[in-house]
Amino acid sequence: MSQKVVLAFSGGLDTSFCVKYLSEDRGMDVHSVLVDTGGFSDAELTAIEERAYSLGVKSHVTIAKTDDYYQQCLKFLVFGNVLKNNTYPLCVSAERIFQAIAAAEYAREIGASAIAHGSTGAGNDQVRFDMAFRIIIPEAEIITPIRDLKLSREAEIEYLKAKGVEQEWHKAAYSINKGLWGTSVGGRETLTSDQFLPESAWPTQVTKSEPETVTLTFEHGEIKAISSPTYGDETFANPVDAIRRLTELAGPFGIGRDIHVGDTIIGIKGRVGFEAPAPLILLKAHHTLEKHVLAKWQLYWKDQLANWYGTMLHEGQFMDPVMRNIETFLADTQSHVTGKVHVLLAPYRFQVLGIESTHDLMSSAFGSYGEMNNAWTGDDVRGFSKIASNQVMIYEKIREHNS
Amino acid sequence: MSQKVVLAFSGGLDTSFCVKYLSEDRGMDVHSVLVDTGGFSDAELTAIEERAYSLGVKSHVTIAKTDDYYQQCLKFLVFGNVLKNNTYPLCVSAERIFQAIAAAEYAREIGASAIAHGSTGAGNDQVRFDMAFRIIIPEAEIITPIRDLKLSREAEIEYLKAKGVEQEWHKAAYSINKGLWGTSVGGRETLTSDQFLPESAWPTQVTKSEPETVTLTFEHGEIKAISSPTYGDETFANPVDAIRRLTELAGPFGIGRDIHVGDTIIGIKGRVGFEAPAPLILLKAHHTLEKHVLAKWQLYWKDQLANWYGTMLHEGQFMDPVMRNIETFLADTQSHVTGKVHVLLAPYRFQVLGIESTHDLMSSAFGSYGEMNNAWTGDDVRGFSKIASNQVMIYEKIREHNS
Amino acid sequence: MSQKVVLAFSGGLDTSFCVKYLSEDRGMDVHSVLVDTGGFSDAELTAIEERAYSLGVKSHVTIAKTDDYYQQCLKFLVFGNVLKNNTYPLCVSAERIFQAIAAAEYAREIGASAIAHGSTGAGNDQVRFDMAFRIIIPEAEIITPIRDLKLSREAEIEYLKAKGVEQEWHKAAYSINKGLWGTSVGGRETLTSDQFLPESAWPTQVTKSEPETVTLTFEHGEIKAISSPTYGDETFANPVDAIRRLTELAGPFGIGRDIHVGDTIIGIKGRVGFEAPAPLILLKAHHTLEKHVLAKWQLYWKDQLANWYGTMLHEGQFMDPVMRNIETFLADTQSHVTGKVHVLLAPYRFQVLGIESTHDLMSSAFGSYGEMNNAWTGDDVRGFSKIASNQVMIYEKIREHNS
Amino acid sequence: MSQKVVLAFSGGLDTSFCVKYLSEDRGMDVHSVLVDTGGFSDAELTAIEERAYSLGVKSHVTIAKTDDYYQQCLKFLVFGNVLKNNTYPLCVSAERIFQAIAAAEYAREIGASAIAHGSTGAGNDQVRFDMAFRIIIPEAEIITPIRDLKLSREAEIEYLKAKGVEQEWHKAAYSINKGLWGTSVGGRETLTSDQFLPESAWPTQVTKSEPETVTLTFEHGEIKAISSPTYGDETFANPVDAIRRLTELAGPFGIGRDIHVGDTIIGIKGRVGFEAPAPLILLKAHHTLEKHVLAKWQLYWKDQLANWYGTMLHEGQFMDPVMRNIETFLADTQSHVTGKVHVLLAPYRFQVLGIESTHDLMSSAFGSYGEMNNAWTGDDVRGFSKIASNQVMIYEKIREHNS
Repeated sequence: MSQKVVLAFSGGLDTSFCVKYLSEDRGMDVHSVLVDTGGFSDAELTAIEERAYSLGVKSHVTIAKTDDYYQQCLKFLVFGNVLKNNTYPLCVSAERIFQAIAAAEYAREIGASAIAHGSTGAGNDQVRFDMAFRIIIPEAEIITPIRDLKLSREAEIEYLKAKGVEQEWHKAAYSINKGLWGTSVGGRETLTSDQFLPESAWPTQVTKSEPETVTLTFEHGEIKAISSPTYGDETFANPVDAIRRLTELAGPFGIGRDIHVGDTIIGIKGRVGFEAPAPLILLKAHHTLEKHVLAKWQLYWKDQLANWYGTMLHEGQFMDPVMRNIETFLADTQSHVTGKVHVLLAPYRFQVLGIESTHDLMSSAFGSYGEMNNAWTGDDVRGFSKIASNQVMIYEKIREHNS
Repeated sequence: MSQKVVLAFSGGLDTSFCVKYLSEDRGMDVHSVLVDTGGFSDAELTAIEERAYSLGVKSHVTIAKTDDYYQQCLKFLVFGNVLKNNTYPLCVSAERIFQAIAAAEYAREIGASAIAHGSTGAGNDQVRFDMAFRIIIPEAEIITPIRDLKLSREAEIEYLKAKGVEQEWHKAAYSINKGLWGTSVGGRETLTSDQFLPESAWPTQVTKSEPETVTLTFEHGEIKAISSPTYGDETFANPVDAIRRLTELAGPFGIGRDIHVGDTIIGIKGRVGFEAPAPLILLKAHHTLEKHVLAKWQLYWKDQLANWYGTMLHEGQFMDPVMRNIETFLADTQSHVTGKVHVLLAPYRFQVLGIESTHDLMSSAFGSYGEMNNAWTGDDVRGFSKIASNQVMIYEKIREHNS
Repeated sequence: MSQKVVLAFSGGLDTSFCVKYLSEDRGMDVHSVLVDTGGFSDAELTAIEERAYSLGVKSHVTIAKTDDYYQQCLKFLVFGNVLKNNTYPLCVSAERIFQAIAAAEYAREIGASAIAHGSTGAGNDQVRFDMAFRIIIPEAEIITPIRDLKLSREAEIEYLKAKGVEQEWHKAAYSINKGLWGTSVGGRETLTSDQFLPESAWPTQVTKSEPETVTLTFEHGEIKAISSPTYGDETFANPVDAIRRLTELAGPFGIGRDIHVGDTIIGIKGRVGFEAPAPLILLKAHHTLEKHVLAKWQLYWKDQLANWYGTMLHEGQFMDPVMRNIETFLADTQSHVTGKVHVLLAPYRFQVLGIESTHDLMSSAFGSYGEMNNAWTGDDVRGFSKIASNQVMIYEKIREHNS
Repeated sequence: MSQKVVLAFSGGLDTSFCVKYLSEDRGMDVHSVLVDTGGFSDAELTAIEERAYSLGVKSHVTIAKTDDYYQQCLKFLVFGNVLKNNTYPLCVSAERIFQAIAAAEYAREIGASAIAHGSTGAGNDQVRFDMAFRIIIPEAEIITPIRDLKLSREAEIEYLKAKGVEQEWHKAAYSINKGLWGTSVGGRETLTSDQFLPESAWPTQVTKSEPETVTLTFEHGEIKAISSPTYGDETFANPVDAIRRLTELAGPFGIGRDIHVGDTIIGIKGRVGFEAPAPLILLKAHHTLEKHVLAKWQLYWKDQLANWYGTMLHEGQFMDPVMRNIETFLADTQSHVTGKVHVLLAPYRFQVLGIESTHDLMSSAFGSYGEMNNAWTGDDVRGFSKIASNQVMIYEKIREHNS
């Protein structure tokens, strides 16, 4: 009986090569799997399945993971307002680790003795796949043909042609990874440090010019409803649909575009363009709401833990048990994060205008900033200032005495 | 002999009231002081001095503190990319504490036995003044007529009129605090949670519509030169002048406007509008440069310490000795933060386009992200992933074994 | 009708004074309350009640809070291994805030319009009482006779005598605060920086000299059983009883004595002696168990949050909502903290000897430290080291290139 | 011409094997180097040199690094009071990375094309050597015969015998690593989780039974003088000598013994015994002094950075640039850490008794804890408490209103 290998399959050149290589050169039974975290249309999923079978896989499955992806990961990125280095919404990082985990679980389920991915040796994805595979199905051999053989694109095409695969392999000017949480864009400019992506490189072109105001409704930190000029008031049973709606509303403004340069898992700096209108708006709106309803130290500690969460997620450490503890913390902070946030959408930018919440701590009932009130007196503040400066006052006295 | 009191004087209604109250009702010799941290024109300074003498002060001094303000505070806000709650450049917070410190030092220098400020009991400034006075000149009585007497604006005007001060006291629709590091704007809308400031409320109106690209040159973290279409290449011996130039270039685009809601020192939430084009651009540009030239954990720990620095600065704790330690740390991280940053300025927004630096760690000599190279092999990464997943792999094995 | 005041009553001179002062000088109905957090015997509670009535209170209640105190606070101090400044188990801090909260809740329940405590103006307790009262029953007047009147001890005794209270007020050489989580000791030496408490000052005298080994069993982070030479194997349905047993076993060895100097809430440094055998042993044993069963970053983040938790608890900020979030986090980390810890007790010291746990990550099945194994190869580590040094290697190359 | 290889040589079986293997099997010119960080006597250094030459090295050098080791590393461990996981003084971790760096710099200096170490594949040391070699001399081949060949002890002895090396290779019951900052002890018990090392396993036996009091004098955080019953008052120009003296004084009490279990760099848990009297006493004494002379937030941030410093040092990341920034911070905090600390030494334990410092913030001139004073009034504290509880009071009000 042939050895059973599970292959994380995307339908592209690299993983197509892997199917042929594993099945024909290595003589294995290839079970391909595509983990759908929300970046594919039904038509694309069907096409990928057909491609897999045409290449000779024993079986192909599409695992629908979009809701899990939101519930087990994206939700916490919103709770934590997570932008890597205050810039990047981790769209590819989060998606890839989820795909790797689902592929590994599938391999384990069907009793595969090997598991393969098509990543090269030059990026973050290889580590995310390697780590998820090793943790979830440590007994399986991890096979990485693209990384190990280091074939050029042309050599892969040649190899496939020799195996009778005559497909046209289109080489786009920009490599695009489209997902629920944003689309990454890499190309000539992102390999430099000084150039920005040209207008034409962005997957979503700017077609709206008139500013619009939308209102986002959060319940316990999750997006539940959107009011927009186009669709009126919409409530979403599934936050995934709200994310999609917001992407649709804001994308044509060119909102959420940027280039991030960051530390890769392998120690080099990497630069990547992205357009991620929904995450950028959601996080800023959510954060503004939190600034109104959470206490000072809640905001502080959320930042600390969320920043760490983002870094570990980025680096493939999503399965570390501390991540579950951090998620528990973040979820616990969201009990009062309920209310509406008004946001102006305009070409290339958005502006949070204000919020409404019954949990708003900026309640005029207890004194407004800059306006006098009856909750405390000038003498109270005088006393506060005196006690709050005691230590430094003493410190300075002693310093002077010693000098 | 009359008791000598130093009064932090701004020329406005409240501190004008204080002069009369202290000199005539309390019978003190009032020595007024205005600490200039860059927010006043020469004409304004002269007018304030004349006002002081006309109200009857014994002496008035203007203390020029703009350069110190930059060297002892703003510089570190740039090094640390400090935005309070990821939003507010602390323009008023930083300025006020510097003014308070300089006033207290002056009081000590001239041997005053009392020191006064005109803050109300409703905001942050009172605490900043109180704390600086207490720490620097703890023996002096702190007198706060506005906070203690709780007079209405009308009552103050009436009082002054009764003392023969016949001036027209203009009540602006928006209270404005103009400073080197930004201008704050408060008004009807900022007392709500849901409304944004109208276009007319912003001190700098939007008069530019054509995008411009400027290039900022940093040396060891400090801004040294700006290239712009308007002024060509300019080098600045004094970073203060570069901040002013950038404000002039970006302000007419309406860049750097926002509303922040945050935790005041006295425990309530406060909302404040601000326009701060120079800080917003400088910090983002500086941060982008740092992402290219600093190592991962340098970025991490800078964030931790800078966030804390901003919070303590905001809360009047600038004199705490840990602040000096943090400044030392931040300065020590800037040795390689040298290079150029290209920034697009456009109406209501800006975009960092890219950087150039000889210290750029994204050097193609050591492998580019997403491109193969010779510095490591696929097997190296395979080994890395295996070791890096060891602990969680073992953790999961044991968990399964126990369940 | 007289005004109803609730008084936190301990039976000592200060709160006895308060009863008379509030009832006779202020004409209020005094409802005294003693919150029992485990530091009193039944006989002591009865005596205090009798004293209260003899002084003329309208009513006296003893509120049993020991179990709540453990469940809502001490448990988390164990989960977090909390020692303030790595020294002090917060015995008084934790107890006092719990007593203040219970007193305030009682005042609210019976509809009191005032609430009183007997703390002086020189310590931490006043702030803990003030804050709990203000947060839980903000409408009530807070009355603090001892702080406000600043009477000497002699004056208080004189006053009481004049009111017909003829009791002997014993002035001990050391002021002792006995509680479930430890006993504090203050006296002549703790007012200096350089002197240690003499043997005679410690409430529990050293009467054991022969070392004993005890075994502590933890379940999900909580102490459940103790094996000792004296009592054999004992299981405790209530962890409070286990804490008492451990205190009884270790106290006569003089274990857990130390002097802490720390930052008081009011900004000065304070020095306090304590004997707290149970906390010191429990925390060290629990921490050792955690080092075996938790992953690296769980240990790291537990430390961060627990340290903060201890500081806020100490400073009377126990009611801040972030404290609930931190408790949730800490509890979430304890799911695997189950096992036995062997501890040697000896005069003035103890030594954790080792642990046993089915969750122990130091499982020989996956390779022992310093022994070779089959889970990874030398090449894996070589690859790990190479990738893990990439960034600094590049950093150094570029630094050399630039210099 | 033969290839030039530098070998980190200790004179033990593994590195002796390496000499023969590299020179005879691989035909390389072996240049052995021993980096002395204070753990060897002159006689030992001479014996190791003779051993090296007798095995056939081309050259052998002893690099004296003890003072650098203190100045560039140990000093900061004291400033930061660094104990890994609050237990382990990092004696082996710190020493090994210094030895690795010095060996790599030597290899670079003499133009070696390869560099070798004798670590196995089972521990931390291999990573420390690998990383230092890769960062400092990235062009050199790293050769690790013991890790790669995985020979048994017996096979190595057999190999050497076949090469004419007839030495007696003593296998000690406990593997000992003696260094300036402590001695590690590994053996049968440390491979378990539940057993403690027997009395006989500790290198320094307990020979003192009568308690002694010593006084340590620190200047700017560094140990400068020791007073002891045995040697009277001694001042040390070189802190290294003070460390040695303290080791000599406290070692015979059995002070500073413990077993640490921690996270190794390779992801498994490792357990190691150590006796480190000088570090344990110095750190506790230094910390106590700091608690008296530093402000609250200095203590807090020192802990954060020092904890990180220890972790990175442990994991071979000493060369990361953030480490230099942290050292700068730590050094900056020590300006006032000057004074005397009295310490009681007794069998198996020590107790800090108290401190004396002109920088002591516990100055009775500004009010003593628990004693009233004139620096503030009860009303000041009342105001402080009110303002400090404002936010939570409002939070609770709103929570009630909503529920």
